[in-house]
Amino acid sequence: MAYNLAPLQNLIDQFERMQGVGHKSAQRMAFYVLGLSDEDAKAFACAITDAHTKIKQCKICCNLADDDLCSICKNEKRDKSEICVVEDPRDVAAIERTHVIKGTYHVLHGAISPMDNIGPDQIRIKELIARLSDGEVKEVIMATNPTVEGEATAMYISRLLKPMGITVSRLAYGVPVGGDLEYADEVTLSRAIEGRSLI
Amino acid sequence: MAYNLAPLQNLIDQFERMQGVGHKSAQRMAFYVLGLSDEDAKAFACAITDAHTKIKQCKICCNLADDDLCSICKNEKRDKSEICVVEDPRDVAAIERTHVIKGTYHVLHGAISPMDNIGPDQIRIKELIARLSDGEVKEVIMATNPTVEGEATAMYISRLLKPMGITVSRLAYGVPVGGDLEYADEVTLSRAIEGRSLI
Repeated sequence: MAYNLAPLQNLIDQFERMQGVGHKSAQRMAFYVLGLSDEDAKAFACAITDAHTKIKQCKICCNLADDDLCSICKNEKRDKSEICVVEDPRDVAAIERTHVIKGTYHVLHGAISPMDNIGPDQIRIKELIARLSDGEVKEVIMATNPTVEGEATAMYISRLLKPMGITVSRLAYGVPVGGDLEYADEVTLSRAIEGRSLI
Repeated sequence: MAYNLAPLQNLIDQFERMQGVGHKSAQRMAFYVLGLSDEDAKAFACAITDAHTKIKQCKICCNLADDDLCSICKNEKRDKSEICVVEDPRDVAAIERTHVIKGTYHVLHGAISPMDNIGPDQIRIKELIARLSDGEVKEVIMATNPTVEGEATAMYISRLLKPMGITVSRLAYGVPVGGDLEYADEVTLSRAIEGRSLI
């Protein structure tokens, strides 16, 4: 449904470009904006330009940062001999919540996916290799997604790193805590059995 | 999950304030913004301020307009003796798609709802009454939503209008075209039977 009002239609189009937002949702969002007070509308627009201009990538780990370095790379207490490699800045936040990783991260910003024309050069693998040259790093934990692309990326990087004498590990596959065996898929369940540990 | 980055967190909060947008969606939208090019991010922010400042309410029918009058009120071919009363500007767009209404509209911007503290004075009823004073209007079609609030609003307005000698009509209730009788609720079905017509 097209409105005759160009500014409104433009705003609907802008919202609709976002992944996962359909036409009806975009319309509802645009009407939400129209219903805002003057200050709130300005604050919303400012939040967009602000986030876009102020958020950069950390020069070491490629994580999001509002400075040259991200808060994790700046932190002197973090173990610089351990790097946890993830696909996306959101994964850093998810792993940080577990408080298990004491080291630093490296954000690839994607995974190798020939189907989508994403090769090793399109993600931040070069930057990772550069971090390993001084010999300080002892272990690299591959925490890419448990998907075909994530797995391929983990394999690719581990083959590059092993000749450098660095330990490369991968997240464990298995049944999720609190899950129900009955509903676990066969692949997950067979990986959980293969990876069983003594109790 | 909170990010340490104030501009990013602020943007996520802004998106999350929209009705129907949860935390995960807001986060995805914020990351979408971070991934935009400089021009696209500026265009997005501009679209918000633009829509908010340029879209006003039509001085006659309270519909959305980018001028003093909306395109329907400006159109001399529209029948000024017929007013279709709706709750929301989106309803105007929906009804316009049917091409059935040759007259004009009046947008109430809400419905009477004592539960939400919305009385007759909080919606554009005064503006509607003012339009009827010159005697040009012959029929008012109540096209408020088929809900308790919409029904109450239609009844309230019809009681105000009848003493003025204006025909007041209401949208027909019945089974939706293409629907399945089996799945029609009892209220709709009984209204459809009551409102049956000769063939």
